[in-house]
Amino acid sequence: MEYRNAVLYVDSVLSMETSKKPVLYTYFRSSCSWRVRIALALKGIAYEQVSINLIKDGGQQDTVGNIRHFVGFIPLTHKLCCLFQLAIIEYLEDTRPLPRLLPQDPKKRAEVRMISNHIASGIQPLQVSIFLPWLPSFLTLWISTTALEQILKETAGCYCVGDEVTMADLCLVPQVYNAERFKVDLTPYPTISRINKALLELEAFQSSHPSRQPDTPPELRS
Amino acid sequence: MEYRNAVLYVDSVLSMETSKKPVLYTYFRSSCSWRVRIALALKGIAYEQVSINLIKDGGQQDTVGNIRHFVGFIPLTHKLCCLFQLAIIEYLEDTRPLPRLLPQDPKKRAEVRMISNHIASGIQPLQVSIFLPWLPSFLTLWISTTALEQILKETAGCYCVGDEVTMADLCLVPQVYNAERFKVDLTPYPTISRINKALLELEAFQSSHPSRQPDTPPELRS
Repeated sequence: MEYRNAVLYVDSVLSMETSKKPVLYTYFRSSCSWRVRIALALKGIAYEQVSINLIKDGGQQDTVGNIRHFVGFIPLTHKLCCLFQLAIIEYLEDTRPLPRLLPQDPKKRAEVRMISNHIASGIQPLQVSIFLPWLPSFLTLWISTTALEQILKETAGCYCVGDEVTMADLCLVPQVYNAERFKVDLTPYPTISRINKALLELEAFQSSHPSRQPDTPPELRS
Repeated sequence: MEYRNAVLYVDSVLSMETSKKPVLYTYFRSSCSWRVRIALALKGIAYEQVSINLIKDGGQQDTVGNIRHFVGFIPLTHKLCCLFQLAIIEYLEDTRPLPRLLPQDPKKRAEVRMISNHIASGIQPLQVSIFLPWLPSFLTLWISTTALEQILKETAGCYCVGDEVTMADLCLVPQVYNAERFKVDLTPYPTISRINKALLELEAFQSSHPSRQPDTPPELRS
C-alpha cells in the first residue's frame, strides 16, 4: 500500500545523534516517502537514500534487504529500529525538536495531528492501487478533499495551521500532487490550492519533490 | 466511517483543567469511541457522554448539534475545540501526561505510534461498512492482522509495547472486538490473543466496554 512506502532505519543503540546516518528507503513518487524527505530537509538531517521501485517486477519492496512492506507487512528487526508512516515524523520531532513540526500549544498540536491523520488515513488509503478495481476512488477522494477544505478554512494561516510549517503541511503537498495525478480539479478548493502553492516555494519542498529524486525517471524530471 | 466516530469537545478557552467537563460524543460499539473511553478512564478524567446512534434513521451523526461526521466531515467550530481520531489521545497525553500512554523513550514511542497507526489507519478503515459492498474485507483484515501479530512478537511484553499500557493497547482491544464480530478465527494470532486477554482484565477496559455503555441495547448488555 503506497501510504506505507517510506521506511527509516536508525541504529537502535547509537541513535541519530551519532555520525551514522539514518537510511531512508524511498520511492520518488510515494507520498509517504516525500513527507519524510520534507521533514528531514526542514530539520537539516543528513541521510542515506535507498530507492525502491514499487512497480518494477511486481514491486521490489518484497525483495530489498529485510524490507517486506507489501500491504503493510514490515518486520521490526532487533538490530535496527524501522519506522514508517507518520510515526517517522513524530520520532524526528521527539529526537530533533527544532525547527518544530508540531506547535507548542496543545490544541494547535491536535489540529495538526487531525489534519495529518485525515490525509494519511482518511484520504490516501482510498487512492492506493489495491482498491482501484473496486472503489470509485474519484468519489471518495472528492468527499474527503471537500472535508479537508472545510477544516483548513478554520485552521489555516499562511500554511495549514497558522503561519508556521507543520506536519500537516508535509501531508498536504504530496496529497495535492497525488490529486493532480488523478486529474482532480482543484478549483473548488481555494484554501488547499493557496497553501500548496505557498509551500512549494520553500526549498525543503522543492529539493524533496518527486521530480528531483535519484530514482526519478528521466521523462519525469524537471 | 466508523473510525471517526468519537468526538471530544473541550472548551477552547478554559481548557480541561477547569471544572467544565469535556463532552465525548460516542457510540457504544464504535472502536474509536471505545479507545477514547479507555484513555479517559486510565487518566481518571471525568466527562459527559452523549450517545449518537450511527445506525438508526440512517445515522444520527448528521443531525446532532454541530456534529456532522459522515465520511469524515467534521467542521471545527470557533467556540469549541473538536477532536477526533488518535489526535484525541495525543491531546490527552499532551495535557494530562500521567499515567503515560506513550513511553518516554523515543523509539518505544515510535513503536507505540506505529502499532496504533497500523490498527487505526491500516486495518480498521477496511472494516467500515462503506467498503463492504466492494471489498473482500475478510481477506484484507487477515493480511493486516497477520502483520500485526508479527510486529507484536517483536515489541510486546505483558502488553503491546513492553509491560506498561500504551496507546497501542487502546487500539488493540477494540480491534479484536471488531474481529470477533467479523467471526475472525484468532487462533493463528497467539500474541494478539494473549495481550487482549490481559488487557480485558483491567478496570479501564472493562468499564469502557461496548457491553456496558448507556446506549448499549439491552440484548447486548453483560
